[in-house]
Amino acid sequence: MNTVNINDGNITDLDAYMLELGRRAATASKSLAVASRASKDKALRIAADLLREQAAVILEANAKDIALAEAQNLPAARLDRILLNEGRLESIAQALEAIADLPDPVGDVIKHWTVEHNELDISRIRVPLGVIGVIYESRPNVTADAAALCLKSGNAVILRGSSEIMNSAAAIAACFETALRRAELDPFCVQLISTADRAAVGLLLGGLDNKVDVIVPRGGKSLVARVQEEARIPVFAHLDGICHSYIHKDADLQMAIDVVLNAKMRRVGICGATETVLIDRDCASTYLPAIAEALIAAGCELRGEADGQAIEPRLVQANEADWGTEYLDNILSIRIVDNIEAAMQHIADYSSNHTDAIITANADAAEIFLKNVDSAIVMHNCSTQFADGGEFGMGAEIGIATGRFHARGPVGLDQLTTFKYAVRGHGQTRPK
Amino acid sequence: MNTVNINDGNITDLDAYMLELGRRAATASKSLAVASRASKDKALRIAADLLREQAAVILEANAKDIALAEAQNLPAARLDRILLNEGRLESIAQALEAIADLPDPVGDVIKHWTVEHNELDISRIRVPLGVIGVIYESRPNVTADAAALCLKSGNAVILRGSSEIMNSAAAIAACFETALRRAELDPFCVQLISTADRAAVGLLLGGLDNKVDVIVPRGGKSLVARVQEEARIPVFAHLDGICHSYIHKDADLQMAIDVVLNAKMRRVGICGATETVLIDRDCASTYLPAIAEALIAAGCELRGEADGQAIEPRLVQANEADWGTEYLDNILSIRIVDNIEAAMQHIADYSSNHTDAIITANADAAEIFLKNVDSAIVMHNCSTQFADGGEFGMGAEIGIATGRFHARGPVGLDQLTTFKYAVRGHGQTRPK
Repeated sequence: MNTVNINDGNITDLDAYMLELGRRAATASKSLAVASRASKDKALRIAADLLREQAAVILEANAKDIALAEAQNLPAARLDRILLNEGRLESIAQALEAIADLPDPVGDVIKHWTVEHNELDISRIRVPLGVIGVIYESRPNVTADAAALCLKSGNAVILRGSSEIMNSAAAIAACFETALRRAELDPFCVQLISTADRAAVGLLLGGLDNKVDVIVPRGGKSLVARVQEEARIPVFAHLDGICHSYIHKDADLQMAIDVVLNAKMRRVGICGATETVLIDRDCASTYLPAIAEALIAAGCELRGEADGQAIEPRLVQANEADWGTEYLDNILSIRIVDNIEAAMQHIADYSSNHTDAIITANADAAEIFLKNVDSAIVMHNCSTQFADGGEFGMGAEIGIATGRFHARGPVGLDQLTTFKYAVRGHGQTRPK
Repeated sequence: MNTVNINDGNITDLDAYMLELGRRAATASKSLAVASRASKDKALRIAADLLREQAAVILEANAKDIALAEAQNLPAARLDRILLNEGRLESIAQALEAIADLPDPVGDVIKHWTVEHNELDISRIRVPLGVIGVIYESRPNVTADAAALCLKSGNAVILRGSSEIMNSAAAIAACFETALRRAELDPFCVQLISTADRAAVGLLLGGLDNKVDVIVPRGGKSLVARVQEEARIPVFAHLDGICHSYIHKDADLQMAIDVVLNAKMRRVGICGATETVLIDRDCASTYLPAIAEALIAAGCELRGEADGQAIEPRLVQANEADWGTEYLDNILSIRIVDNIEAAMQHIADYSSNHTDAIITANADAAEIFLKNVDSAIVMHNCSTQFADGGEFGMGAEIGIATGRFHARGPVGLDQLTTFKYAVRGHGQTRPK
């Protein structure tokens, strides 16, 4: 086997390099899968310490990325995503320590039972998935967050940051390599792809000769779409967050105003932001103007149809495309619906199955909505912006998945594991 | 949209036909997902009754399949798999009633908690996967078993039996269609592909325009290999069942003999049959002859290496290929290993990650094995032939999966579901 020097920055044979990354990750994952909680947490705490100790080195690397980004005239918002400073580094370090504090999912007995007729003692036990590929864009902190979540859940990770954060990501990844060695874990548990060649992404999505078990994309819609299109292995992701807040006729008006304002405007750029409000016709004449007033006062453009405009003239004309648009902006579409069935039908037609909420004081209506709406997260009387692993009490998340397989909703430590069955007997043989 | 008559047996446009099947299944799955347990169980019980009432019709259809198979000179074992009779029909009917008796997985609250800092009440609730494609070979009973498991778990199913059971499968599927109508469920919850065109399988594996969520192949290795290779959607399957029984030096000899004899010889043709026995060198000189004697007396050919042959001359010479072979026959490979680490390394190298067992009276050794062997099922002191959903107390299984995603091990009702989060609040908004 050719050994490829993966740290020299002169990668001549991309295929061989990527396959070597895959082999190293697969080998590392075997020992990491059975590593003690103490050693994993030790590595995480040492990595946190190193992020602080090496702050000057990391910020110097980040300054190179920023200089390159400025030379390319990247927009200010993108520069801000790339930027690290002492405060942000401290936050990253604290996030690692918070992950160290979380319980270890590996080895958890999910279920335990004894089969009556054969006396087998059966446990379903959490085990790591194996090797996770994480592809992300311009946030250097994802390097540390993703590495830490994978490490804690016993998975080796292959990281691929965008080219605009190569120097920052490499400096952060170096802290993990050192930390893994000091904790006596395989340093290849965390590997960063050290080439900007975009073909590396295609190879990773192909699974590197069955060495990578799952891909997690972190970034914009075009990245996720490419990953979902090209990946030949499972992907934990969501393409869109077209979330709905439905104001049922029995909603408390003040609650509806407060919740919708937060669901839309707290942060307009996150996937859990509400993009469409549905309002029952029975309450629209009074509720729509009050809700519209609060949103417009907060700087939101509202789009709606003729029946809504007749009640609230400040609604801009909506067209069919609005119902399927994730604005990620100060824009909200509003539709008046005849009843809860019409609201659920609208959601079935347009939702991206991420998060959809009903606001109502009617418990029966709430249960109908929670049962019938087929989204990863369904909510009653709260803001869709709570769609987040931290807010769910999972400690941290690597993303939110809208697929139906394995992980659905916030992808935290538990969702980065699979399980096996341990069967304990006393010499039983199976009858004919 | 062109409507395709799917029951006329004259299918001229396969693409349109398959897409129509997919659309109907997807629509049916929506109402089935929220159907009551009572209506699903009613359909299952009516289907069981119809299998009995329509026995003459079904056996006549089966006689046609048998006549065609005989005309093709299919081997006797294959004819026996195709054959139905009153007794087998009664068994199929009873299996449907047993599935009706099982608890409904849909709506089960898998986990429930309240998040302290935001007071959100969160439930993780089982919901159906959606539409399941089942591709199977020459056993007509799979038509009923698979339909029943999918129906009970709230999933619409598209069935594809091999051409040699087309008449039998159609007669059984007709019972389900009638039963679904009588239970006031969408009759398209259970659909059988009514063309022998093999291209239909390829279309099904492509997902029918995102209408099919998962494929379950039931049959021989070539079928599973084709499905795994071609499917563009998730597959629940295992390709091989290369299962190991490891006789640790602290094993009770009589238990080792009894368990290995059962693990290999109870039924040699099932995926949970042991194909390789590993024996610790420390006990080989006494244990190997005793175990070999029992197996040879039962008609099993034993293959081994020079060190084994020195102890037990009746071992036929094994070669490298033996360790990776699923014999499904009266043949067993035996290797002497230095210790538990060597045994686990052999299993890591050759196991198909289906089921692997250790026989030992040493609890520490057992726990090391159960923790470190990375197979869907790991066992201590029992026969690998217990690798079965029924023996696990799951009631019934649609197959066994060796993949790491979603379903692993026996695929029963629970594994045919996914989940969603229901979040209940009292007007909470998320702080900045």
